[in-house]
Amino acid sequence: MAASTDAPHGGLAAASGPLRLTLDGPLRLVGGAILESVEVAYETFGTLAGDGSNAVLVCHALSGDAHVATGPDAEGRVRPGWWNGMVGPGLPIDTTRYFVICANVLGGCLGTTGPGSFDPATGQRWGLRFPLLTIEDMVDAQVRLLDALGIDTLLAVVGGSMGGMQALAFASHYPQRVRSIVAAASTARLGAQSIAFNEVGRAAILADPAFQGGGYAPDEQPRDGLAIARMIGHITYLSEGGMREKFGRRLRDREDHAFEFVSEFEVESYLAHQGRKFVERFDANTYLYMTKAMDYFDWAPPASGDLPRFLVLSFTSDWLFPTAQAREIVRQLLARGADVSFAEVESPYGHDAFLLECEQQGALIGAFLERSCALSRLTERRAS
Amino acid sequence: MAASTDAPHGGLAAASGPLRLTLDGPLRLVGGAILESVEVAYETFGTLAGDGSNAVLVCHALSGDAHVATGPDAEGRVRPGWWNGMVGPGLPIDTTRYFVICANVLGGCLGTTGPGSFDPATGQRWGLRFPLLTIEDMVDAQVRLLDALGIDTLLAVVGGSMGGMQALAFASHYPQRVRSIVAAASTARLGAQSIAFNEVGRAAILADPAFQGGGYAPDEQPRDGLAIARMIGHITYLSEGGMREKFGRRLRDREDHAFEFVSEFEVESYLAHQGRKFVERFDANTYLYMTKAMDYFDWAPPASGDLPRFLVLSFTSDWLFPTAQAREIVRQLLARGADVSFAEVESPYGHDAFLLECEQQGALIGAFLERSCALSRLTERRAS
Repeated sequence: MAASTDAPHGGLAAASGPLRLTLDGPLRLVGGAILESVEVAYETFGTLAGDGSNAVLVCHALSGDAHVATGPDAEGRVRPGWWNGMVGPGLPIDTTRYFVICANVLGGCLGTTGPGSFDPATGQRWGLRFPLLTIEDMVDAQVRLLDALGIDTLLAVVGGSMGGMQALAFASHYPQRVRSIVAAASTARLGAQSIAFNEVGRAAILADPAFQGGGYAPDEQPRDGLAIARMIGHITYLSEGGMREKFGRRLRDREDHAFEFVSEFEVESYLAHQGRKFVERFDANTYLYMTKAMDYFDWAPPASGDLPRFLVLSFTSDWLFPTAQAREIVRQLLARGADVSFAEVESPYGHDAFLLECEQQGALIGAFLERSCALSRLTERRAS
Repeated sequence: MAASTDAPHGGLAAASGPLRLTLDGPLRLVGGAILESVEVAYETFGTLAGDGSNAVLVCHALSGDAHVATGPDAEGRVRPGWWNGMVGPGLPIDTTRYFVICANVLGGCLGTTGPGSFDPATGQRWGLRFPLLTIEDMVDAQVRLLDALGIDTLLAVVGGSMGGMQALAFASHYPQRVRSIVAAASTARLGAQSIAFNEVGRAAILADPAFQGGGYAPDEQPRDGLAIARMIGHITYLSEGGMREKFGRRLRDREDHAFEFVSEFEVESYLAHQGRKFVERFDANTYLYMTKAMDYFDWAPPASGDLPRFLVLSFTSDWLFPTAQAREIVRQLLARGADVSFAEVESPYGHDAFLLECEQQGALIGAFLERSCALSRLTERRAS
């Protein structure tokens, strides 16, 4: 499908449905490799204002995709979005006011060029020959998408977790192209413990004989290894207290212990289910590339000057990217003279809170975007 | 080797070297199964007093063995013990004063009957046909060992982590046979998060094709799966702060990122090394049985009455069995009218602190044992 700045209109606040665009020319990566051809899968929601002032880029996290809000899928069936409580008509990121763009990240497995794509040079799937990526590379691909869509300056870049890293990287590398940045449940860099969890997940994938050096066929991927990686991930996305509340030591469908090696505790069934579900929709190679990009991320704040405004959010029970790490982002930004708002949101949902705490988080993000609009109108009036 | 109440004497505070004893008669397990023949591997350190009043049973944790203090191995070579800073001549658990007994747990892979042993009924290795165990079963096997050694009443049962669970279970089921209990870095029951970590480790073992339903030959065990389980475990044994301090984001033997799927960060090399080391000395089936026994553990405190004294220790940075869980043990004991001392030891070493903080922990345990001796002498004088 050809690129177009005219987002298709319709119900559901003008949800575009799946779109796809081939970037104009090669993409040079931070690690030195050059991707000759990059396709980006994206969706848009809402209508771009005549002056282009209402565009909001939402960046997804590790396992997300372009389908950020409710809208049609490729078959035209309406499917809920992954940030359903945050993006939509009348919601904090209001698609009747903002033109929301969300793209599957570079290296992804949900439409954008990644290790599961075909290498044009060989006609084979890339597999592990796909070059390793950084968060900055993901942002570069998104900026090239914006170029193609004719969007020069964004009202905001918004993201949680790995999406927040992209928002921060956007601010550092393209400060002139964005008025405001929202980073929720995110970090400027992973600590040793988070790298360790990622590494164990990767080890589980690499050890799975079905992995075949990354050269598996798409329907024969290393399911066990990827499921184990996801189970580890899930433990870090929930909080200890949240798990205690949700599962405790309750057994599933039984009164007493089995004295067999079967799932007995509810928390075991939950994790096994999450693992099984994940392998149906996600690719093991992409999991490797995403976690490595996160491990590599080591954010340098933008140079002082004409900076976007920032909203940094953390969640009380998030132990993957805890509040102390959000404060570190704030500290680095303040040292550059940036306009930074920070809030720690009370939540029992751990790292997943950025997906779930739509009311509290939404009020903060909604008001922040509103103020960004007002400020940009003010700037324009002064300039004119 | 035949059982004997006369511990072999010699240097190194009369370290016995490896001993082995076949329990007299079958062992009935909590789950209902009966083990017709159980061999227990154990070691002793020091000399049993004529009145038998100085015997201390030390219970090891998940990956420990009977070799708690420095002493000869089976080949007569002197090898350091796993609790080297705590047990030995002049140390807090002073083997010139106390007669220390430490046995490999039931279900273990370091001498005592476990899934790697031969089932006398079939002549085959048990594998997963070995019955599932509880912490209480481990304690029963130890009490049967004490019976064989002619030790009626212990001065103390001391353990950390899973060893602490055994100490607590000992107090509940054999309160008349012990004067004092030390449980360090332990818990009355695992929470959902700890069960989840155990379950993911088990999933990694079960998914390894080398596992062969538990029927692998000893030199062909599921190394990858067991190494991954151990890596997950290690993350939970350290603290976030400790890992940050020890590894941070430092790269190993390189200046910049590899942009390849190799170990780059020091924390990755450390974990991979821990995984590799572990599979050389530990058995995957035993790992399954030990973690399951821990998951099942749900401690009921001893009934009120003539209870042993308790010392409960926790460590500030232990997030596997945190201080709140130690306080819960204390609360349950106080409700039964027990004499309980509790201390939270300041340490950056996470759960591993019980193995490493020998000075602080040692001062507390040493004084507690001393007082237990004094009290038991007092009781005897009054009785006589």
